[in-house]
Amino acid sequence: MDKLNVIKVGGAVVEDTASLELLLNQFAFLDGNKVLVHGGGRRATKIAASLGLESKMVGGRRITDSDMLSVVTMVYGGLVNKTVVAKLQSLGVNAIGLTGADMDIIRSHKRPVQKVKLNDGHEEMVDFGYVGDVDKADGKALKALLANNIIPVIAPLTHDGQGTILNTNADTMASTVAKSLAPFYDVTLTFCFEMPGVMHNPEDENSVIKLINAKTYSKLKAEGVISGGMIPKLDNAFDALSKGISRVVVTHYNDIAAKNGTTIV
Amino acid sequence: MDKLNVIKVGGAVVEDTASLELLLNQFAFLDGNKVLVHGGGRRATKIAASLGLESKMVGGRRITDSDMLSVVTMVYGGLVNKTVVAKLQSLGVNAIGLTGADMDIIRSHKRPVQKVKLNDGHEEMVDFGYVGDVDKADGKALKALLANNIIPVIAPLTHDGQGTILNTNADTMASTVAKSLAPFYDVTLTFCFEMPGVMHNPEDENSVIKLINAKTYSKLKAEGVISGGMIPKLDNAFDALSKGISRVVVTHYNDIAAKNGTTIV
Repeated sequence: MDKLNVIKVGGAVVEDTASLELLLNQFAFLDGNKVLVHGGGRRATKIAASLGLESKMVGGRRITDSDMLSVVTMVYGGLVNKTVVAKLQSLGVNAIGLTGADMDIIRSHKRPVQKVKLNDGHEEMVDFGYVGDVDKADGKALKALLANNIIPVIAPLTHDGQGTILNTNADTMASTVAKSLAPFYDVTLTFCFEMPGVMHNPEDENSVIKLINAKTYSKLKAEGVISGGMIPKLDNAFDALSKGISRVVVTHYNDIAAKNGTTIV
Repeated sequence: MDKLNVIKVGGAVVEDTASLELLLNQFAFLDGNKVLVHGGGRRATKIAASLGLESKMVGGRRITDSDMLSVVTMVYGGLVNKTVVAKLQSLGVNAIGLTGADMDIIRSHKRPVQKVKLNDGHEEMVDFGYVGDVDKADGKALKALLANNIIPVIAPLTHDGQGTILNTNADTMASTVAKSLAPFYDVTLTFCFEMPGVMHNPEDENSVIKLINAKTYSKLKAEGVISGGMIPKLDNAFDALSKGISRVVVTHYNDIAAKNGTTIV
């Protein structure tokens, strides 16, 4: 099976021109089949603020009313996505920018009003608005592009098939894309962020845990080494692994080949 | 040769939800190979104004500084393009949104500072900023999509191959796309706008000139029937015809099959 790298890069890296440049240069040099999935939340928050719109988040997720949907459609699908595509073209990568609506690659449904546990522990009914929970992805359509050496650059937007764009979490987009391509490739799903990997001690950059498997994960959780926001991320990683992805990597954005990151198998 | 329709729809239609819906419904029902090219200038002007940016136009063309480039990239490549793609998907059209940067389909160069004749007749040196004049288009890449029943929806943005997006006139985009596909298809290039076609008398909707050819065009110009802003449009049409396009149609956006429009051959 051919190898495929699905690289997810978050809003903080996308926001900073120098970091983005660094990331895209590495992405361009990555051999073989690859897909880039990007966020853009920080840029969306800034532009929303310039337009007089306040960004409301619940549990790290953006409440997306109709005006905010216009903002994320503009920023993720237009500004960030096309900036990245043009940069990759200049680096010799034949990139194509996509949302879930393009070629119907990712279909979702509007998240129903639901009970959410807030940070202070109490539960509340929350209407996230135009936020999409993924139903299905068309790996074959993406494979057809890759077969022609066209590299997908995917923005965190999906559609409901009824004509409505929906704001969708970029981590979810990345694992959805990776899972949809797992029948055709040996897939590595890499999450790039501002830390070198999963660390024994978050204060110590030299304490990266090189390898985590189901057994060591239980142990690390029991010992309290892995806690808080890292738990849902790693739960997602193990879910992806159970759906045919070969390995999940958590690494710094200046090290996407993950010489020093954490590999989850 | 298979038939292909390249439909260009301008900013005024795109801006109005009901007009856009009407246009997209007709586009969905159009048989065979088709490409949609859209504008979005009015929306860009509104959003720029909300962001505190003034839109400066010279000779109907937008001066595009760095902030304005961000706005048009967001609005054309994101908001308008993805809204149209999602709507078309809901109508059963397997649309894909593209700018010139995606798959490197349209390459351009930044327009040099140049002498421009202003409305009052005097000439001035004008720096249009991040505006692209088209160098080349990759009809083969578009044909490969069409061969898989994927319908391109093209935003008026190109790139320079050096990593920079450039704002590009939507009429020019449409004729560029049509010309690039002329070697492979019998191409009709249709410009949809708010008038039923080229008219003998602009006040009389029943005075549409059904057919214009090079001979009648000279006559109509000499008689003063065709004048002003219609002349560059028709000059472009004849240029397109000389580059392999079979026919150019000017018609109302509620009549894209052009039962009542003007056909230029």
